[in-house]
Amino acid sequence: MNPSDRVEDIARDLELSMRRSSIPIPIGVSNRHFHITQSHWKVLFGDAGPTIIRPVRQPGQWAGGETIDIVTPKGRLSKVRHLGPFRSQTQVEVSKTDAFALGIDPPIRASGALSGAAPIQLVGPKGTLDLAECVLLAQRHIHLSPADASRLSVKDGEVLRVRAGLGGPRELVFESVLARVSDKFALEFHVDTDEANAALLKNNDLVHIV
Amino acid sequence: MNPSDRVEDIARDLELSMRRSSIPIPIGVSNRHFHITQSHWKVLFGDAGPTIIRPVRQPGQWAGGETIDIVTPKGRLSKVRHLGPFRSQTQVEVSKTDAFALGIDPPIRASGALSGAAPIQLVGPKGTLDLAECVLLAQRHIHLSPADASRLSVKDGEVLRVRAGLGGPRELVFESVLARVSDKFALEFHVDTDEANAALLKNNDLVHIV
Repeated sequence: MNPSDRVEDIARDLELSMRRSSIPIPIGVSNRHFHITQSHWKVLFGDAGPTIIRPVRQPGQWAGGETIDIVTPKGRLSKVRHLGPFRSQTQVEVSKTDAFALGIDPPIRASGALSGAAPIQLVGPKGTLDLAECVLLAQRHIHLSPADASRLSVKDGEVLRVRAGLGGPRELVFESVLARVSDKFALEFHVDTDEANAALLKNNDLVHIV
Repeated sequence: MNPSDRVEDIARDLELSMRRSSIPIPIGVSNRHFHITQSHWKVLFGDAGPTIIRPVRQPGQWAGGETIDIVTPKGRLSKVRHLGPFRSQTQVEVSKTDAFALGIDPPIRASGALSGAAPIQLVGPKGTLDLAECVLLAQRHIHLSPADASRLSVKDGEVLRVRAGLGGPRELVFESVLARVSDKFALEFHVDTDEANAALLKNNDLVHIV
């Protein structure tokens, strides 16, 4: 590499770094929740619901009015909330703290990658379901629209670093943050409650790609 | 600064960085626990105990056989374990996850800095105590002996960065890690359960100062 190429590289890195640090990304903290298929819903809830209590930041998605219990031979967590709408697979997302309470060891996965996910029993008001591959710890990720991805020079599937809690007593840098780009998405960094608490973050706090 | 000074600076930084990365630091994950004075012990336990179930890595310290419940108007956590020996102040350390369950907002503090700590009721088999300033979230910290501090070129009170979970799906860099140097200490990086889970760490995993 000749010196002028090297200077161009440095200038480009600097420009990207400055652009990214000028675009704050809001945090969404995911408490334990479930996604469910329509047929599984009928097993747990019969013909009632689902009801919507409030939209979340991702377009078309919402926190539901209904909850279930999730049960293993070693533990039980109550009032696990539905996140709608219906999906093509039933999936439960918990924190590692929850996993210890349940005595299970779910893998860290992107949403939907259920091969090897942990088994669980779902208990609703009208019935129960035993699912062999259902529970995961969500891989931390950023949702981006194509316009966000362009502004931030990020590609779908890219692995990013995110600085969080800037200036606070629990500031940290998350490695291995997965970028997920879709025209169905809005800009948001998703972490679970363990990750949020480790950096003392709450919903709508702002972070930056570094 | 003239160019040869600059080269010396870079060489020194590089040498320090290489030395630090050659010295792994074991992790101690702190689950919720309490330290207690002898007089408070008598209120909660009467004349029984304390008993020792196992030593921990810090010399002279041990996990006790006895537990208490900790109670607020909004919640209760059971079987919170004693960490001995007796101390000059009674102190409860919890995670932020625990704090949400208890409905309190404890500050992040170094051990012993109880001014402004959150109130709590301690419930033992023989009595209860209501303490106005007692509960904190532990500031993440590294214990070092003077020899460790010398090898790592770290001063007591210095604020460090620690890389954890290297190569794993939850690798991260903790900022704001407090160095605590004493001839009573053994080399160990202390985090709470939220911080451990955020990086998928367990006791005796190894981290590095960066």
